Amino acid sequence: MGRTLTYPKRTSNTVNRYKNRATYDLGAIHSIINTTQVLHVSFSPGPSEPFPAILPMIGQMGSFDYPSAGLDEPLDCYLHGYVSSRIMNLARDSEEGLPVCVAASKVDGLILSLTPNSHSYNYRSTILQGHAKLVTDEAEKLYAMELVTNSVLSDRWAHTRVPPDRAEMSSTVILKVQIVSGSGKVRDGGVSDEKKDTGNEEVTNSVWTGVVPVWETFGEPVPSAENKVAEVPSYIKSFVAAKNEENSTYAAKAIGIKLPQEEQH
Amino acid sequence: MGRTLTYPKRTSNTVNRYKNRATYDLGAIHSIINTTQVLHVSFSPGPSEPFPAILPMIGQMGSFDYPSAGLDEPLDCYLHGYVSSRIMNLARDSEEGLPVCVAASKVDGLILSLTPNSHSYNYRSTILQGHAKLVTDEAEKLYAMELVTNSVLSDRWAHTRVPPDRAEMSSTVILKVQIVSGSGKVRDGGVSDEKKDTGNEEVTNSVWTGVVPVWETFGEPVPSAENKVAEVPSYIKSFVAAKNEENSTYAAKAIGIKLPQEEQH
Repeated sequence: MGRTLTYPKRTSNTVNRYKNRATYDLGAIHSIINTTQVLHVSFSPGPSEPFPAILPMIGQMGSFDYPSAGLDEPLDCYLHGYVSSRIMNLARDSEEGLPVCVAASKVDGLILSLTPNSHSYNYRSTILQGHAKLVTDEAEKLYAMELVTNSVLSDRWAHTRVPPDRAEMSSTVILKVQIVSGSGKVRDGGVSDEKKDTGNEEVTNSVWTGVVPVWETFGEPVPSAENKVAEVPSYIKSFVAAKNEENSTYAAKAIGIKLPQEEQH
Repeated sequence: MGRTLTYPKRTSNTVNRYKNRATYDLGAIHSIINTTQVLHVSFSPGPSEPFPAILPMIGQMGSFDYPSAGLDEPLDCYLHGYVSSRIMNLARDSEEGLPVCVAASKVDGLILSLTPNSHSYNYRSTILQGHAKLVTDEAEKLYAMELVTNSVLSDRWAHTRVPPDRAEMSSTVILKVQIVSGSGKVRDGGVSDEKKDTGNEEVTNSVWTGVVPVWETFGEPVPSAENKVAEVPSYIKSFVAAKNEENSTYAAKAIGIKLPQEEQH
């Protein structure tokens, strides 16, 4: 009975190649953004600069006005990162906000087929376009700082020394991107080859085809020399275990296989 | 006695924040590009479009004229991917080449410190700026196709059905970016906190600090239903093993720790 919100198709975000892999669903797009550790944010540095710029930044989709909003509802993109003074000044000086493009991509597997042209990745990728402004409201800034910190490691904010003091608040810059359009692409499945090769025994007898699953692994937490807390807290252990399970399971399910663990049960 | 080539510092590529993490060395920058599975390529879609565009693409640094050139020598960036007709047409129509920015970023660890403001990632990131043109020379195109295929999995090209036929050659588009400038940033090490927190026992006794190493894992190769080669070939097994070793070792060494395996010996 639910409705599925989608981003409107415009020239700038419409996928023309492999349309069947395209998605405009807010939920799918926001979920790729929120599980990607580094976003790539592009902007034009100005008329005198010929090249666009890209900054790697940490960010999350969220809604300050409706914090309980789901991933499939309209959200803003909050960015925090190595904000050069250039992007800050451009965003500060722009009345409508600085036009930016935010991209997130994840590789889930190497698709090894009979011929180089049919090689591919299993992947999830998305772009959002919108206007970036500095967040000036203190309460909204705090909301975004907590959101971004907890995206690095779930529940980390409440387990650190908070709230930030005056100096920390003023040295932190949060950009809020109001989204105008977005699109995503998801490729999953296995090898796909053309008849001219699948029908050629010399080829099929000599070329191994299949998928190498790929995922991001989180290792055992390593305490710092100064750390005084005896045990790794359970919220950190759970995060590491949950992420490893989630990431490796996704890569396996993208190929349509069951994990060895599942088969054993 | 060696020389170290560096990209010249210009306004567009000079790192202003955390200068001590900056690098302009060709070797360091090219190596981040060449070990990153998906590059993010930004360009301006034209004067009528307010937003820059970003495409996820597969690419490699290489030199067609001097194929034996090392990573620390001047190289071009060859890109192959889901090339929308937009970027192809823009590059084709541009005499000087389309101005693009190519970015690559890798997360090597979560730096969990006492307060959110001192949280960070261990990471490697780089951007290159240059002019992109379509490769039209057949021999250069083949060189780049082999380079890019082998970046997905070492030595894969020679183990597939090659050379590409006429249809495959004409449907494949390779962009060559002649680099104008570049810079990189590398953060490694452990937790770094301020005295106001390290000197506060209430804080240090309650907040766990340390690093969660992060790396990309390649799983067991899964044969396709159509695969007729009985065993996973050794060049694939070696690639998977070498990558896992390289990636997990880098994440551990970035923190300055020895791996458990090393300690046991």
